[in-house]
Amino acid sequence: VDAGRFPIKRVTGDAVVVSADVHADGHDVIAASVLYRRAGDETWNHVPMQAIENDRWQAPFPVDTLGRYEYTVEGWVDRFASWRLDLSKKVEAGRDVSPELLEGGAIIADALTRFPEGPEAHRVHQVQRTLSDPATEAGRGVAAALDAELAAVMAAHPDRSRATRFGRVLEVLVERERARFAAWYEMFPRSAGHDPSRSATFDEAARMLPYVSSMGFDVLYLPPVHPIGRSFRKGPNNSLTPAPGDPGSPWAIGSEEGGHTAIEPGLGTLEDFDRFVAAATGHGLEIALDIAFQASPDHPYVREHPAWFRRRPDGTIKYAENPPKKYQDIYPLNFESDDWQALWRELKGVFEFWIDRGVKIFRVDNPHTKPFGFWEWTLAEIRRQHPDTIFLSEAFTRPKVMRYLAKAGFSQSYSYFTWRNSKEEIVEYFTELTRTKVREYMRANLFANTPDILHEYLQHGGRPAFQVRLVLAATLGASYGIYSGFELAENAPLREGSEEYLDSEKYQIRPRDYQQAGSLAEMIGRINAVRRDHPALQHDWGLAFHRTDNPELLAYSKRPLHGDDLIMVVVNLDPSNMQHGFVQLPLIDWGLTPNSTVEVLDLLSRERYVWRGEWNYVRLDPQDRVAHILHVRIDPDARSAGTEDVKPMAAALGR
Amino acid sequence: VDAGRFPIKRVTGDAVVVSADVHADGHDVIAASVLYRRAGDETWNHVPMQAIENDRWQAPFPVDTLGRYEYTVEGWVDRFASWRLDLSKKVEAGRDVSPELLEGGAIIADALTRFPEGPEAHRVHQVQRTLSDPATEAGRGVAAALDAELAAVMAAHPDRSRATRFGRVLEVLVERERARFAAWYEMFPRSAGHDPSRSATFDEAARMLPYVSSMGFDVLYLPPVHPIGRSFRKGPNNSLTPAPGDPGSPWAIGSEEGGHTAIEPGLGTLEDFDRFVAAATGHGLEIALDIAFQASPDHPYVREHPAWFRRRPDGTIKYAENPPKKYQDIYPLNFESDDWQALWRELKGVFEFWIDRGVKIFRVDNPHTKPFGFWEWTLAEIRRQHPDTIFLSEAFTRPKVMRYLAKAGFSQSYSYFTWRNSKEEIVEYFTELTRTKVREYMRANLFANTPDILHEYLQHGGRPAFQVRLVLAATLGASYGIYSGFELAENAPLREGSEEYLDSEKYQIRPRDYQQAGSLAEMIGRINAVRRDHPALQHDWGLAFHRTDNPELLAYSKRPLHGDDLIMVVVNLDPSNMQHGFVQLPLIDWGLTPNSTVEVLDLLSRERYVWRGEWNYVRLDPQDRVAHILHVRIDPDARSAGTEDVKPMAAALGR
Repeated sequence: VDAGRFPIKRVTGDAVVVSADVHADGHDVIAASVLYRRAGDETWNHVPMQAIENDRWQAPFPVDTLGRYEYTVEGWVDRFASWRLDLSKKVEAGRDVSPELLEGGAIIADALTRFPEGPEAHRVHQVQRTLSDPATEAGRGVAAALDAELAAVMAAHPDRSRATRFGRVLEVLVERERARFAAWYEMFPRSAGHDPSRSATFDEAARMLPYVSSMGFDVLYLPPVHPIGRSFRKGPNNSLTPAPGDPGSPWAIGSEEGGHTAIEPGLGTLEDFDRFVAAATGHGLEIALDIAFQASPDHPYVREHPAWFRRRPDGTIKYAENPPKKYQDIYPLNFESDDWQALWRELKGVFEFWIDRGVKIFRVDNPHTKPFGFWEWTLAEIRRQHPDTIFLSEAFTRPKVMRYLAKAGFSQSYSYFTWRNSKEEIVEYFTELTRTKVREYMRANLFANTPDILHEYLQHGGRPAFQVRLVLAATLGASYGIYSGFELAENAPLREGSEEYLDSEKYQIRPRDYQQAGSLAEMIGRINAVRRDHPALQHDWGLAFHRTDNPELLAYSKRPLHGDDLIMVVVNLDPSNMQHGFVQLPLIDWGLTPNSTVEVLDLLSRERYVWRGEWNYVRLDPQDRVAHILHVRIDPDARSAGTEDVKPMAAALGR
Repeated sequence: VDAGRFPIKRVTGDAVVVSADVHADGHDVIAASVLYRRAGDETWNHVPMQAIENDRWQAPFPVDTLGRYEYTVEGWVDRFASWRLDLSKKVEAGRDVSPELLEGGAIIADALTRFPEGPEAHRVHQVQRTLSDPATEAGRGVAAALDAELAAVMAAHPDRSRATRFGRVLEVLVERERARFAAWYEMFPRSAGHDPSRSATFDEAARMLPYVSSMGFDVLYLPPVHPIGRSFRKGPNNSLTPAPGDPGSPWAIGSEEGGHTAIEPGLGTLEDFDRFVAAATGHGLEIALDIAFQASPDHPYVREHPAWFRRRPDGTIKYAENPPKKYQDIYPLNFESDDWQALWRELKGVFEFWIDRGVKIFRVDNPHTKPFGFWEWTLAEIRRQHPDTIFLSEAFTRPKVMRYLAKAGFSQSYSYFTWRNSKEEIVEYFTELTRTKVREYMRANLFANTPDILHEYLQHGGRPAFQVRLVLAATLGASYGIYSGFELAENAPLREGSEEYLDSEKYQIRPRDYQQAGSLAEMIGRINAVRRDHPALQHDWGLAFHRTDNPELLAYSKRPLHGDDLIMVVVNLDPSNMQHGFVQLPLIDWGLTPNSTVEVLDLLSRERYVWRGEWNYVRLDPQDRVAHILHVRIDPDARSAGTEDVKPMAAALGR
């Protein structure tokens, strides 16, 4: 990444496939190795590289522990192999090779100095004596020289004294699998009760855990849980005139009850929080906290660290704004102050505080408005002690800034997914994310909605629109998420043309009836179960889009990097109308002939179909279903076998 | 190139266009500059960059002297511009901006410390006092603050104290124009007489100079002119049984008369050589010498520096071979000997010897069989003293090795051009050479033939084949060359299936009758004149291929990097048959409408045609001509004007 300036990213258990152009002058036989080690280790591990084609060499190395790895490449002239090749050509040409045999004896004698004592060295030494003896009969000498076992033994003891090493040591950041594969659910714990006039407590919120867990989520992400400021507190719908009981925005962090390491009293205490985390863990849910480095005017930092805030000539602190937008309840921190080092240490300490309470996933609010250098330092420092920490960047900004934050160390990034709704947009964006170098360092977490983003597609498309976006998020991305209310198809905007929710939970407590008819909870549960069962859906790199003859029908398949799982998804992107058409299966890519028959199982409906040939008919009526998530079974032995027991897809769908 | 490991290449007078992703955290206004300097200079020159799109910034810098340049990029937050933008937004929103005006006063006061004394500083100081005075009426303050002239003056005195500089200093190797644009003619001076039984002298060879000059060549390249060894001398057609008078191969360098710094006695003396160089210069021809670092068994090095040769166990020196090929008359040098430093110095001295005698262009024989590091060091060392030296790499080897030699410092490279004869091959190869990063460091010199390569296309295609390859070489490449005999369409191979010439001049003296009927000399002269008249043909980057409906018709255009010259070439690749069809003009790319009319002038026949619309008919009969080299005149004012005075192309060609 940027010529070694930043690490690539992997998770434990992955293989890093390294390729390099390796060549020497002349016609000698060369060899090459990937060198790798855990950062901090003294010695390198060597993996022999294989020549692929046209001077390109390649080898994989495993990364099985968390943290940083280093790697580079080394190449050298293999004197023995060069001599052996030359000898074999001369033997083939019927030449007298007695001088060559003597030469070989000398090369082996030199190589023997690199052999440890033992039977191997002994055997090679015998060959050496045979070749170095002028009395050796030529045929016997040639046979000994060209012996395949000798070649293998010699290759295992290469002379690297004149090896050339690549000029840089490159890095890999190895995280745990959850950095790549997880389903997230976002919830305001204060809304978990039944009374909109008061905050629910953590204990009340804990009653939601079985529900969230039943939908198969892995991560439960909470907006800030810290004391909320009172000064310039926002009222419902971002108004400046709150009523006395209005709870304010959780992102207006800090009051006399404390700041980033305190708990909002309405939610409870630190002990209540700990109990909530433990309960979540018991339901298989890992808690992700929101880290928003900003302060309400009442935050203790304002009193205790006046230097951390930018003051205007009249002595007042500037509140956050992006004209014409104003955030009167929030002061930004001044990362350029003379006291910046204390500020950086303090903020790193905020992460560490919550890590010490068992939180290992952080969703970082607006990291693009803080210095890149701060993130690079903080994230590396934290990972040094806690390599299992995961950081999600909430930077909805320009593509290169988003990528730079990923390079600087964020495990994952929010994406443009919410704004990519047409087939063309989706294909273009996910090709960029999964088929370009971007994939080496940036992992998208596909949130289908957030408290800030209710896309007009959802506003106007009704329940089927939510189903479409759910299927896309959960199958295009190994990491995806929804913000609560999504499963209830909540779609009322603040006003036409706005992506803000009406009566947004950011400013109000919003209890919900999660048991209401029409909830997508069951569908979500099924899809999350499919994700857990199918390695193809646990990785982003195996995505391939396929042609259809209808622009509203999007078709793609996913495969894991290893193993033979294969998932095919066909989605009707039009939430309002039945769409039908033909979908092209990449049978050749799948190792089949264009006339092959494949059996597919719809993992949502459990229906089985058989698809014949490349182009197959699909019909998706949103009233019935918006998508097929199909498990494709390719049985190499049964490519043209009978399939009478399954009904043809077209017939099944044409009912 | 390779992330700064190697320089890019330019010639004097070029501009280097630098682009970079530049961004900061947050929403501040930023600025960026390209920093450049001659290598060795202390101070940087700054060129302000312009934002192009999507965080991409760009600026050019000029390179007008030979040698190495360095460059990098710097970016910073522009505090004044950020404040000014913020102020203008607030003014637009009708806000009270009096605190902002005070803030601006402080920013300007800080900036003034960077201003030299003078009227400019005085005027800015007045603005500063206006803004810093709380009594200033708001409207007046805003007007002073947003004044465009103030913005320009402030931008000219940026605060770079917190600038971020790109982590690498990149390099440019600047050569003279001839490294990019020249027509080469290769000639064995010993064949310049009339008697095949003895070597012509330099004085006799000088009689060829007017002829070579009349064809418009720029460079006259001579195979090695050094004493030729007698041991294992090769006879005609590479035989091992030379007759007493056989001259041997000029690449078997060295005899008792001397080595790489001596002149073959048959050609004359060093003084004769000097006179030949001077005469060539008088005819506008620059001499290029062949540097082949290898020795005949009779070379003085063999006696004087036994360590520079690799010995076999029996004490004999290994001759060069690439089994089954044997070069008994040549010993390779051993670059891995313990005495390698003396060898490197000696070989560098060979270049310097000839440079001191006025030679500044070297065609280097088989550089890929010598260490890359040797070339990188030698070429850089020589250029340090003689930055006008040009090196052509004769490495017909794998693509990445050829590219690596270019990276290591060769000005030019022989190419695969001779083996690219079909339309598909040509389009693919020249797209790689001119449209990928390769063009930044590798310049192809398109030899249409060499003493080693007589392609079967030439063997079987007769005179038209030579015309086709001439047009392609001279118009696809800013640098191209032919080896003498090409203009006479010499096409007899050693045997069917071989690319070697029959009775190759490498082993025999081959006087020719250059005045014979059918010579292409006049056509060559016309084409070289066209090359000199048209900047479009003097650069490789402006090449674009265009569609035709006939696979034997190749169409492309060339434009210079600056200026509005435009050449269109249409070639019939089939030397045996008339081919006709339609050629698509890229009218949109040329800034015209698809219905436009363009006037074209055939620069070989001086015929004028008018082409209407995108698709135009072309008919090329090899008996008449193999190609059009057309000057396209685009008159912006006459796009749809009448063109009755020129005949339509189709009519002209359909005669």
